[in-house]
Parts: sequence; structure tokens; C-alpha cells
Amino acid sequence: MARSIFYHAGCPVCVSAEQDIIGLIGENNVEVVNIGEDRARIAEAEKAGIQSVPALVTPNGNVLHINFGASLADVKG
Amino acid sequence: MARSIFYHAGCPVCVSAEQDIIGLIGENNVEVVNIGEDRARIAEAEKAGIQSVPALVTPNGNVLHINFGASLADVKG
Repeated sequence: MARSIFYHAGCPVCVSAEQDIIGLIGENNVEVVNIGEDRARIAEAEKAGIQSVPALVTPNGNVLHINFGASLADVKG
Repeated sequence: MARSIFYHAGCPVCVSAEQDIIGLIGENNVEVVNIGEDRARIAEAEKAGIQSVPALVTPNGNVLHINFGASLADVKG
């Protein structure tokens, strides 16, 4: 199965959601990307349709925005 | 594994998220509840901490609000 990608920015809401997502779909099925640290991937997240983090991009390209940690504008700013 | 519960209200955002969640964690691992139809379970959703649907309650009781379809107030109203 293609992996999902979980984008976050290290915020408490993000960390909590990350643990939940890993518990639900399995560590091997999700790539975790911290766009607060790995800023080169912010553009990739935007292109995927992400508006806020934490968010999960499914293998078929759908974006699931989960709870609310930070807007992408805040991460970029 | 204890099952998660996915609460929705039949809205297009909900249906799309439902398909994604089922694809990610498996149909057998999630109970799907339409609180728009099964209104007796709205109180249960509120008690779980749900503020909007679609939302997923994990086996350990955490609430993941996913995207945004409708506030619980709208579903109740």
C-alpha cells in the first residue's frame, strides 16, 4: 500500500494527532514530515492542498485536515 | 483492537472523509454513525468531545476533527 504523508509543525496539537494517526494506520504506512523544521517541504504541502497542520495526505491524494494546530501561513511567517 | 467511531452527518465532506478513513484503517476497525439520522447518538458524540463532524473518536478516546462539514450545533438545530 502506498504510504500516507502526515504534515505537522511540532505544535502540541500536531504531536497528539501524530500519535493517534500512527496508532490507527501503523507507523510503516505513514511518512511524518515536520514542515516547521523541514521548510523545503512547505511548498510540497501547499501543492497537496494543505491549508493547516496537522494534516494527512492519503495515498490517493486526498487531504484530511485534522484538528487545528497552525495555519500554513503561520508556519511560513 | 478496539474500534474507532466515525461520526458524520451525511454531508459531502463527511462522505468523502468516511471513504478515506475506511481506506486507511479498515472497515472492520471503525463504526460509522450518522448523527443526522441516528439523532439519539448526538448526546454521545457531544460527551466524547465532538464539536463538528466529520470526526473520529480513537479507541483511547481522543477526538480527531477531520476537515469541516457541519458544527454539532447545526446538526442539532
